[in-house]
Amino acid sequence: MNADPTSPPTGEPPAPTGSGLGKLPSHVHIREEGPRDGWQNLDDVVIPTALKLDYIDRLVRTGLRRISVTAMVHPAWVPQLADAADVISGLPTVPDVDYGVLVPNPRGWERLTSLLDEGAPITEITTVVSVSEAHNRANVNMSVDDSLRQLEPVVSAARDRGLHVCAGVATVFGCSLSGVVPVDDVVRVTRQLVDMGAAELTLGDTTGMANPVQVVDVLSALREAVPDVRLTPHFHNTRGAGLANVLAAMQIGIDSFEAAYGELGGCQFARGATGNIATEDLVSMLSEMGVTTGVDLPALIGIVADMEGLLGRRLDSHVSHAGPVEWVMTETAVS
Amino acid sequence: MNADPTSPPTGEPPAPTGSGLGKLPSHVHIREEGPRDGWQNLDDVVIPTALKLDYIDRLVRTGLRRISVTAMVHPAWVPQLADAADVISGLPTVPDVDYGVLVPNPRGWERLTSLLDEGAPITEITTVVSVSEAHNRANVNMSVDDSLRQLEPVVSAARDRGLHVCAGVATVFGCSLSGVVPVDDVVRVTRQLVDMGAAELTLGDTTGMANPVQVVDVLSALREAVPDVRLTPHFHNTRGAGLANVLAAMQIGIDSFEAAYGELGGCQFARGATGNIATEDLVSMLSEMGVTTGVDLPALIGIVADMEGLLGRRLDSHVSHAGPVEWVMTETAVS
Repeated sequence: MNADPTSPPTGEPPAPTGSGLGKLPSHVHIREEGPRDGWQNLDDVVIPTALKLDYIDRLVRTGLRRISVTAMVHPAWVPQLADAADVISGLPTVPDVDYGVLVPNPRGWERLTSLLDEGAPITEITTVVSVSEAHNRANVNMSVDDSLRQLEPVVSAARDRGLHVCAGVATVFGCSLSGVVPVDDVVRVTRQLVDMGAAELTLGDTTGMANPVQVVDVLSALREAVPDVRLTPHFHNTRGAGLANVLAAMQIGIDSFEAAYGELGGCQFARGATGNIATEDLVSMLSEMGVTTGVDLPALIGIVADMEGLLGRRLDSHVSHAGPVEWVMTETAVS
Repeated sequence: MNADPTSPPTGEPPAPTGSGLGKLPSHVHIREEGPRDGWQNLDDVVIPTALKLDYIDRLVRTGLRRISVTAMVHPAWVPQLADAADVISGLPTVPDVDYGVLVPNPRGWERLTSLLDEGAPITEITTVVSVSEAHNRANVNMSVDDSLRQLEPVVSAARDRGLHVCAGVATVFGCSLSGVVPVDDVVRVTRQLVDMGAAELTLGDTTGMANPVQVVDVLSALREAVPDVRLTPHFHNTRGAGLANVLAAMQIGIDSFEAAYGELGGCQFARGATGNIATEDLVSMLSEMGVTTGVDLPALIGIVADMEGLLGRRLDSHVSHAGPVEWVMTETAVS
């Protein structure tokens, strides 16, 4: 992984400290999940590979430095990602960009290994396990312990190849199938993943049930239990509280989030499926707060507009329609 | 006004204190703005008076205790609210509910006075002025100082009749016409309104430009400048940060917010007009955080669903489509 998780870019001013909000991070790292989580959940269009590569190229050019580009899943299971190998081999080469791939199981790892042998520019993988037994069975048809067991050699082999390993943990804040997910279970699963060698935990609010108080409680418990790994929440905006959850997490020092442009994404086991927090809404709020992300908001909004054209429907994100606050300030100022 | 702004309902447990979020209020008061701000901004349908009264009755029965029911504006200006007198005279009588009316000027106050003389069950009024000169001129065609001058006798007369006076202050967090709104200007305008006798300030993020750091800064300055009045932010979700702004405000002790069911509302001078924060998304987040509102979320969601039927389109709020977290917990639990 290229991006240093611990330090903001040199020369950045410290973020404003709202007296009631404590000390916020001055810089936030974003992993763009649109090409993987976002596209995977589209059921109205299969995007041609060349167009995918064009979108990824444009996302890179907004300044996003971590991009989740595809998944090593069975083509019959997710037809949208059947072109994974072609996407990976066509990725634009940019020195400081980390391309990540979702690797759910040893078969997926085998496939990725062949591509790596051919020089695939992948620097990160994300594995998958749910804390909730019911969700893990629904998602990958095995128990949580069996999932952990089969991930161990994957994590180990990926580390041996010098890849940054994110352990994706689903249903961290509740499960649409089994309800409350005890914090102790989250700690138990994440501890095992860290013991295996995961350097980062991506913490999924898979079915959009998190709230700010819970976010602070769960993330605080995790930071105590696994202090040496990066914690990257993956919030959904299912019930409108996505950015409030980000704000809560930032107040205990979390400076890394996953998001998807256009509020794309979802979960097939969640009612009223809605997407990830929108990258552009996240960038907009942070920018207005004085927190840097390195992302060019107008360029990102242009991508969302083109995506709406491709899909022939309005996406759910907000600032893409309202425009950045900065535009309002400069375009219509009257004095 | 019936609802006591300072104390939570007896017997309520204190809200959970997320270590990183400080001490949050245990109860939040909501003023429902759907019937006024929400309906006023509908351009696709004029709702028949009887149906309006039915919606208001249902909103009351969800447990909402403060409802903004209409505005004393010229019928030619806002045809949707031309039936203001009939709405007011038809309001369901509920002892502990406060019905509020927007009164923009002395002519509006004269009209309301006649209705009050006939026994109209109105207990609150909200006046209107923008901090931004450009927005005030666009909205009411006069300078801020002229607006303040003409509001003075209205506030005074309303107090004399025993009404609770909210001073509505627009463009508190920025203006789509003039850009940055200095905090000093906000303090100057609000101080004059409080000196006139306003008991509450409703603070409009009129064009959806607020961010959490700014919310803390501006509200802290106001609390110091005008310590004896209730501060009720009125956030819009224009750029997706509505509930994050609520969370920030709560962290400095704010326990009163305006919202509109279905994320209705908007502002005709803001690009990509989007509505108030959705009452149901607010209630959902607070409820999950352990903060009470007294509002029956499923009943409120039922109202939103019927409103979508009436309008023939999907509204922008979230939990209305995803369902309360509680439903997910109980309906689909498998163990």
